[in-house]
Amino acid sequence: MDLEKYIRNIPDWPKKGVQFKDITTLWKEPEALRESTEIIAGRYKDKGITKVVGAEARGFIVASPVAYLLGSGFVPVRKKGKLPYKQVEVVYDLEYGTDTLTVHEDAIEKGERVLIVDDLLATGGTLKAMIELIGKMGGEVVEAAFIVELLFLNGGKGIDVPIFSIVKYE
Amino acid sequence: MDLEKYIRNIPDWPKKGVQFKDITTLWKEPEALRESTEIIAGRYKDKGITKVVGAEARGFIVASPVAYLLGSGFVPVRKKGKLPYKQVEVVYDLEYGTDTLTVHEDAIEKGERVLIVDDLLATGGTLKAMIELIGKMGGEVVEAAFIVELLFLNGGKGIDVPIFSIVKYE
Repeated sequence: MDLEKYIRNIPDWPKKGVQFKDITTLWKEPEALRESTEIIAGRYKDKGITKVVGAEARGFIVASPVAYLLGSGFVPVRKKGKLPYKQVEVVYDLEYGTDTLTVHEDAIEKGERVLIVDDLLATGGTLKAMIELIGKMGGEVVEAAFIVELLFLNGGKGIDVPIFSIVKYE
Repeated sequence: MDLEKYIRNIPDWPKKGVQFKDITTLWKEPEALRESTEIIAGRYKDKGITKVVGAEARGFIVASPVAYLLGSGFVPVRKKGKLPYKQVEVVYDLEYGTDTLTVHEDAIEKGERVLIVDDLLATGGTLKAMIELIGKMGGEVVEAAFIVELLFLNGGKGIDVPIFSIVKYE
């Protein structure tokens, strides 16, 4: 199945010059939703993953069914102010300014084998912050898996966690 | 399995007097994630659901694996400004002011059988807006399913769509 054909290109969004990859057109097709989920989950079936971590908000859509299929727990990483309990946080750089990602302090235990799952790897800012967050809690990031990777943005550069992606744009 | 014991109560969050029901403690437990997902999906197995709709952001966590299990498509409903393509929108009332929910105009076709899935039913404001949104597109809402329902807030009152919830607080 050619999953790329279900991804819609949106020119000049969210700003001029950006070709945004819209995955909602993949998720609304039952067969494409099924196949993308099973490709990711199938890759980690026997890897002893105990937690799947997804980032707000689109990442939840991909990560949650993967956690279900792997028989792992699901852990949401959210923007500051969204989680109700005690948190671990990481501040990371945006193009202009900074942002903060948080996770509940009891969401991941020391030594757990963690899979990061997100919809799209672009510059890697969120990914780096998630790896730092999981590391602070003593979790071991086994790999980071994406539906789409924008290779020309080099998001995987300088990241010492293996990266897997289904659809790659050169 | 007693799913209620996996839900954490957070007193006075997000504001004084509110007992917030934190479902992240259920999602991080593999067996509780599995059972809550299968209870909802199992209920609609033979109901001809073609689309499962979830609202940003926690709703995505529950709705996406249900769509996967039902062999339906998944459709995200988001706050205004988050979706990249042409949208249908609904303005709804909050305690103070209003908010706007949006969905891609081609996400649901006329006559589709739609299941709404969310984490928690409180006052029902988001649910009402989602029903209106799906109605505008010509979709038929078969039911709305939740992990948690706060019965004392009467969120189902005046809503002519059947409601199902797993854990109820009186």
